[in-house]
Amino acid sequence: MASPIEQLTEIFRHFPGIGPKQARRFVYYLLGRPDYDLKKLAGLLNLLHNEVSECRDCHRFFPKNATAGAICSLCADQDIDHSSLLVVEKDVDLDNIKKSGAYTGRYFVLGGLIPILEKNPEEKVRLKLLRERIETDYRAGNLKEVILALSANPDGDNTADYLQATLHHLMDTGLKVSLLGRGLSTGTELEYSDADTIKNALKNRA
Amino acid sequence: MASPIEQLTEIFRHFPGIGPKQARRFVYYLLGRPDYDLKKLAGLLNLLHNEVSECRDCHRFFPKNATAGAICSLCADQDIDHSSLLVVEKDVDLDNIKKSGAYTGRYFVLGGLIPILEKNPEEKVRLKLLRERIETDYRAGNLKEVILALSANPDGDNTADYLQATLHHLMDTGLKVSLLGRGLSTGTELEYSDADTIKNALKNRA
Amino acid sequence: MASPIEQLTEIFRHFPGIGPKQARRFVYYLLGRPDYDLKKLAGLLNLLHNEVSECRDCHRFFPKNATAGAICSLCADQDIDHSSLLVVEKDVDLDNIKKSGAYTGRYFVLGGLIPILEKNPEEKVRLKLLRERIETDYRAGNLKEVILALSANPDGDNTADYLQATLHHLMDTGLKVSLLGRGLSTGTELEYSDADTIKNALKNRA
Amino acid sequence: MASPIEQLTEIFRHFPGIGPKQARRFVYYLLGRPDYDLKKLAGLLNLLHNEVSECRDCHRFFPKNATAGAICSLCADQDIDHSSLLVVEKDVDLDNIKKSGAYTGRYFVLGGLIPILEKNPEEKVRLKLLRERIETDYRAGNLKEVILALSANPDGDNTADYLQATLHHLMDTGLKVSLLGRGLSTGTELEYSDADTIKNALKNRA
Repeated sequence: MASPIEQLTEIFRHFPGIGPKQARRFVYYLLGRPDYDLKKLAGLLNLLHNEVSECRDCHRFFPKNATAGAICSLCADQDIDHSSLLVVEKDVDLDNIKKSGAYTGRYFVLGGLIPILEKNPEEKVRLKLLRERIETDYRAGNLKEVILALSANPDGDNTADYLQATLHHLMDTGLKVSLLGRGLSTGTELEYSDADTIKNALKNRA
Repeated sequence: MASPIEQLTEIFRHFPGIGPKQARRFVYYLLGRPDYDLKKLAGLLNLLHNEVSECRDCHRFFPKNATAGAICSLCADQDIDHSSLLVVEKDVDLDNIKKSGAYTGRYFVLGGLIPILEKNPEEKVRLKLLRERIETDYRAGNLKEVILALSANPDGDNTADYLQATLHHLMDTGLKVSLLGRGLSTGTELEYSDADTIKNALKNRA
Repeated sequence: MASPIEQLTEIFRHFPGIGPKQARRFVYYLLGRPDYDLKKLAGLLNLLHNEVSECRDCHRFFPKNATAGAICSLCADQDIDHSSLLVVEKDVDLDNIKKSGAYTGRYFVLGGLIPILEKNPEEKVRLKLLRERIETDYRAGNLKEVILALSANPDGDNTADYLQATLHHLMDTGLKVSLLGRGLSTGTELEYSDADTIKNALKNRA
Repeated sequence: MASPIEQLTEIFRHFPGIGPKQARRFVYYLLGRPDYDLKKLAGLLNLLHNEVSECRDCHRFFPKNATAGAICSLCADQDIDHSSLLVVEKDVDLDNIKKSGAYTGRYFVLGGLIPILEKNPEEKVRLKLLRERIETDYRAGNLKEVILALSANPDGDNTADYLQATLHHLMDTGLKVSLLGRGLSTGTELEYSDADTIKNALKNRA
């Protein structure tokens, strides 16, 4: 059986963005830490799934002790405006948008993007759950707008197209489905902008 | 006196983005080219200022033979809409926007940006010429909108602020002064976007 | 108290080469893994210090079950040549040299380099233990050569100078203390080589 | 016919390491320079082939006014040791080695490397001229050593192999043919070194 050093290296090698060399450096870093630190990390890992749940409503991960039940503090907060639902690809996108302070409505974590030419989008992302959530909220009269906050790349665009098509019947009866604005992002220089960005920046000028 | 190799290296070293090593490689590259090529390049350089002018109206560089006089083909073309004037920092920005096909109005090349805390903005860029151009066109009743197409960085923002302040008296009488739209540019991922970009992308959603 | 997500992010943020964004991605990656995987990782961490020891002789980390006692399999192997001792900065260097198959003698992990102008080198690295190890082996008649296998940077050179000075009395009585050869490393292009590398490559030509 | 701006952009686009965007920036940079500067650059280009020759002996480029005839100052200098000849791929390699001050003998510029599987090496580089130069100098009793100072990459290694094979008959009669030493180059860290570099660094330890 492989040594603990080898086994840990193999596990860290599968962490996002980590190659075998850095995985090995992680192990030696841990070997140089006091046992107290390793025990603390192990304790957190052991309890992670007990203490963190996926929210029943928005599907982001949240610490259980924050609320009594199966929904996160954001979804449980009745003061938060129900009129808009912002759809993101993943938890870190939600964290980043929340941190910006620019959005104060409700969220839904799709759990991925739909690649172009994907045969089974339903299996890739939470499409069925999203549709149910939107239909319920819309029928209840609360929801006015779904904001698709997806990255500006081919898979993000494909996902937005797919979601707009799938929500078409609700858009016909008044639900607004919007996309994030396109234009110059912070730091963009005109000399290096592509035609689409220039086109959008001109269209959205103000 | 320095050898031609040293002299040419020194000249290329001042080309934008070129260090001493690459400057030297340029010289050896040229030494490996046939004399016909060097003579052609030298001929183009000798005639460059004779054959290329700065347009009297938009101040971009243009090949003289394209039009009879002191103005470029874009400024000479009476079919081009006079109602909007797009202000850019430099010629390559104009080229890039023109290539995008997203804008078909008139241009003005400012010749630079105004750095934050700049003491003498008038000496840095063509402020006086821009004001005269705008006032003339606006008084003549042609100009409706000035579009500030500047890069989304601190100097670009500072320049836009300065130009808006300097055009305030015309804005009060109906001239529209607009900025390029901000939001996600092509390729932007939400995970790595800053708060300003997210804020603008949400504000400009559609 | 911070949530498990925050606490784990904070711990991963201190892993070598990891910033806050990637630390957070690690946590979401783990949240998406089955509980079985997290329990396995926790188990390995809990036992790490029990199952991995620092070798009494070479000071590298080694899995305890590999040998009965306090020394690693390399140090326990009596067939390994005692005539040379290779001194490295850290465990990963030892792993990399071992993997190259180019060295089959004995090792010593110094535990760091001595920075230039360091006031207390004895506290930074295992200087005292290295001296004792070398003196014991040399007096016993086994050791003929100490190879300082340190990185080719200022701290590595400073450490080599310090070790050579500290071993001077043994060098006078016949112990060879050598440094790794300098020259072109794989992939080095002459156009971009510094003067020292060229000098060494010429001196070591063969 | 294309405008001077387009023509110059096209020429600069073929400079080593330059893409179309940077080529265009070069043209606008030149348009912003005074005519005096452009005339000076053009003058240097016009005279480049008149004032710089390829040395008959070492085949590097040299300014003609430095010596009376067809050979460069290095080859004309009778005080320079004739006992060693250093073979380099290209002029910049020679410049870099010369600048290091580590070599004071004679040079030969091969004019390229021989790619692996190359069918016609004779047409790629100055093989015939190199053989003639070596044979003449060796028969005259001056030359003792040929140093192959080629980059540490597959094409460099292939060229060295080819040259050693081609010089084999002279090596049998006493000519030394050496390769630059391999090992750690400045800045190399052991953690990231490949097996070949470690092997060579151990072999060349001193």
